[in-house]
Amino acid sequence: MERKYSDDSLTLHTDLYQINMSESYWADGMHERKAVFELFFRKLPFGNGYAIFAGLERILDYLKEFRFTDSDLAYLKEEVGYGDDFLAYLKTVRFTGDIYSVVEGELVFQNEPLLRIEAPLVEAQLIETALLNIVNYQTLIATKASRIKQIVKGERVMEFGTRRAQEMDAAVWGTRAAYIGGLEATSNVRAGKMFGIPVAGTHAHSLVQAYKDEYEAFHSYAKRHKDCVFLVDTYDTLKSGLPTAIRVAKELGDKINFQGIRLDSGDIAFLSKEARKMLDEAGFTDAQIVVSNDLDEYTILNLKAQGARVDAWGIGTKLITAYDQPALGAVYKLVAIENDHGEMEDTIKISGNAEKVTTPGLKNVYRIIDRENGKSEGDYITMQDENPAAEDHLKMFHPVHTYVSKFVSNFDAVNIHQQVIKNGELIYENPPLEKIQAYANSNMDLLWDEYKRSLNPEEYPVDLSQKCWDNKIRNIQEVKDSIQQMTSK
Amino acid sequence: MERKYSDDSLTLHTDLYQINMSESYWADGMHERKAVFELFFRKLPFGNGYAIFAGLERILDYLKEFRFTDSDLAYLKEEVGYGDDFLAYLKTVRFTGDIYSVVEGELVFQNEPLLRIEAPLVEAQLIETALLNIVNYQTLIATKASRIKQIVKGERVMEFGTRRAQEMDAAVWGTRAAYIGGLEATSNVRAGKMFGIPVAGTHAHSLVQAYKDEYEAFHSYAKRHKDCVFLVDTYDTLKSGLPTAIRVAKELGDKINFQGIRLDSGDIAFLSKEARKMLDEAGFTDAQIVVSNDLDEYTILNLKAQGARVDAWGIGTKLITAYDQPALGAVYKLVAIENDHGEMEDTIKISGNAEKVTTPGLKNVYRIIDRENGKSEGDYITMQDENPAAEDHLKMFHPVHTYVSKFVSNFDAVNIHQQVIKNGELIYENPPLEKIQAYANSNMDLLWDEYKRSLNPEEYPVDLSQKCWDNKIRNIQEVKDSIQQMTSK
Repeated sequence: MERKYSDDSLTLHTDLYQINMSESYWADGMHERKAVFELFFRKLPFGNGYAIFAGLERILDYLKEFRFTDSDLAYLKEEVGYGDDFLAYLKTVRFTGDIYSVVEGELVFQNEPLLRIEAPLVEAQLIETALLNIVNYQTLIATKASRIKQIVKGERVMEFGTRRAQEMDAAVWGTRAAYIGGLEATSNVRAGKMFGIPVAGTHAHSLVQAYKDEYEAFHSYAKRHKDCVFLVDTYDTLKSGLPTAIRVAKELGDKINFQGIRLDSGDIAFLSKEARKMLDEAGFTDAQIVVSNDLDEYTILNLKAQGARVDAWGIGTKLITAYDQPALGAVYKLVAIENDHGEMEDTIKISGNAEKVTTPGLKNVYRIIDRENGKSEGDYITMQDENPAAEDHLKMFHPVHTYVSKFVSNFDAVNIHQQVIKNGELIYENPPLEKIQAYANSNMDLLWDEYKRSLNPEEYPVDLSQKCWDNKIRNIQEVKDSIQQMTSK
Repeated sequence: MERKYSDDSLTLHTDLYQINMSESYWADGMHERKAVFELFFRKLPFGNGYAIFAGLERILDYLKEFRFTDSDLAYLKEEVGYGDDFLAYLKTVRFTGDIYSVVEGELVFQNEPLLRIEAPLVEAQLIETALLNIVNYQTLIATKASRIKQIVKGERVMEFGTRRAQEMDAAVWGTRAAYIGGLEATSNVRAGKMFGIPVAGTHAHSLVQAYKDEYEAFHSYAKRHKDCVFLVDTYDTLKSGLPTAIRVAKELGDKINFQGIRLDSGDIAFLSKEARKMLDEAGFTDAQIVVSNDLDEYTILNLKAQGARVDAWGIGTKLITAYDQPALGAVYKLVAIENDHGEMEDTIKISGNAEKVTTPGLKNVYRIIDRENGKSEGDYITMQDENPAAEDHLKMFHPVHTYVSKFVSNFDAVNIHQQVIKNGELIYENPPLEKIQAYANSNMDLLWDEYKRSLNPEEYPVDLSQKCWDNKIRNIQEVKDSIQQMTSK
């Protein structure tokens, strides 16, 4: 399709109000004030006990290219109506701030910053939408994949969801996130090329239909592909597909590597048990049974409870769309801003809902790890000038139900963020994807099993330091006082 | 991130098994056999009575660029291990077939082809995954938007979901689909630039926080932006936000165009009624109340039942992710293929589930429109050599519950497909987006209200001609016979 503005930069991948606000900041000379935003979610997805962070690579790519192109500016002038003076300023905008982030594969939890952006106000504002778009989806999918991996344990899991993904970016970046969460392979060849993820897949029903005969189709497939998994449910799994697969495997013997069969419909629990029997009786005790049919952690758990004999799982729709909760609700909130005198001042967003009140100020997040057993006691949010590592013991208390508290001693306090961008320059190197996956996997050892179960896990503590709590209360009180003052006028 | 294969073509945006099957076809000299695939879904999404087709523009863009690049081929050789002979062939592959499609904005229903692809077997196979990926998501979102539009009637609806979309493509293509389904505007500026969709949005909580004061923030915003909608829930909607908005509107009077206020949290039904009162009492009877807070057709219906006073709706997460059903299950099935003698032969995919058995053969779909009232009686699927327009009356019967039938006379039979690609060449021009939206909107007049209600609509008839039905039964019987033969050997 011919478009009026033919080029496409991601810099406009933002909400209009970000540009409107930027115009006000710029007009009032506030655009270069240093602002601090935090990106966090309030509630873990899927009722899970943890989330796996993903999205940083895509964010860093996006920021590297962050600049309004001439055609972006032409669009903003001609179609939206911004003035030339403001557009001349926008043309100069690059990201020049600092970003502190958790790394991909990191365990993350409710109400703690995943990223902290310290940048001139306009810059921090303009990138909000894209950062949320990226982190919300990728973290959601990495977490969903990890849930599935917790249920299947050592069995192989493959991502098969491209055809049902929410457009193309979701297919490839979702696959990458799923790989971080622990999946072994993907059917998406482009994702394989982009990210080096192993690709998997054999054939579809249409192969059988094209040859009009399972025997011909399997035979022909085996001729070109040494590693064979035959899809056996095109016509009738037990009467036709499986016997034919076994016949072809016997006939071709050592000429092929008969890896097994795939079931894609019907009663998987029953069929997989029958298939196992038939394969074993034919002497193919090593042949694998691959299953793919609207699976997720719930159906897998059920199939296992029914004694299904499955060696590998292909997961489509339910993973790539996070079907049971297709959005993570991360937000991006201003916690501090430079005032007229060049000093940083805290800011707060109040809400009728206590859990939606933001926690003001520049803060750090420490993971408190028990030195004896290597398990995490929880995450501990402090003001930036606090150093819990220097403390002998910590009092950790719940940030909403403050009477829930515990004392911790003999711990390591690990700052979970690292600086990835400094004065606009990238100072972080993305690890290879398999290292990120290994890191996510090793993080599981930090958690007690109670946090990892897929149903009704214990709530992992994310607590505020006393100082951080006191500061929050003081800020709330100040807002209340000023509203009081206004209404009594 | 530096990547081993730095360029990215969408040609690899396919499942590995498509390439594996292509290799078999090619090795057996079957790659150029003419194949006919149909793309269709079996079940309407959201329990809706109809769907709105979207995705064709993106498909045509994709096909235009369809070719394996040198780096695609290098990847396939080095990482996947295909042979040089097959890769030399892949290098030559372009899409050279024919595509018949419904146009964007068309009403579509269960079990009828949305696209029919007639092409050399390998070409039709390789494009399957991308076509499904595109149509599944875009049709889902266009349909969701149309459901919302049915509930809000004439009120303005804006798409605000980018931050929660499933990655970037979903945000922009989803917005486009939502616009086709009837939405008026989007907050996504890039979608505005790409597709000419009107953009909307004013300011966020962070503006108020940055100025530390609602009065300062609104004042400053109004200075630069003549059209003002003030967000009033940063601190306290009724005590602070609303009174301040009214104060600023009064002070600035004719200097600004005070359009109204936006509510983004709290009890929207209650707050909107209070806000209406306060605005009216202050003399701003034209001021609009814009609402945005996890809305969808269900919450909007509820708010309306509670007497909420809302003039415009900003819809985020629930629309852009189709939260209550985040995937449409369209499939792509081979219905006919050229045999050894150059003749087309029907193919079928059998399933234990009657609704999953495909309908074989080259077919057309006619919309049967009553000449008297202009309403559609249903869709009628025929074999390609039938012409229902030449009939005086039609017997239409349900393709699963065949005893459900009716006779129709005095009708127009409109073939719902048109050819968009001929011998690989584009012969169709995408209409401007607003025309597609208008077409989708006008299509609503074809449907009785019973098909349009959002809860438990009547099932719109999609019926098979007698000839089409007989052909399907004959194909099923042939497969059954051949399985019988095999098992009795």
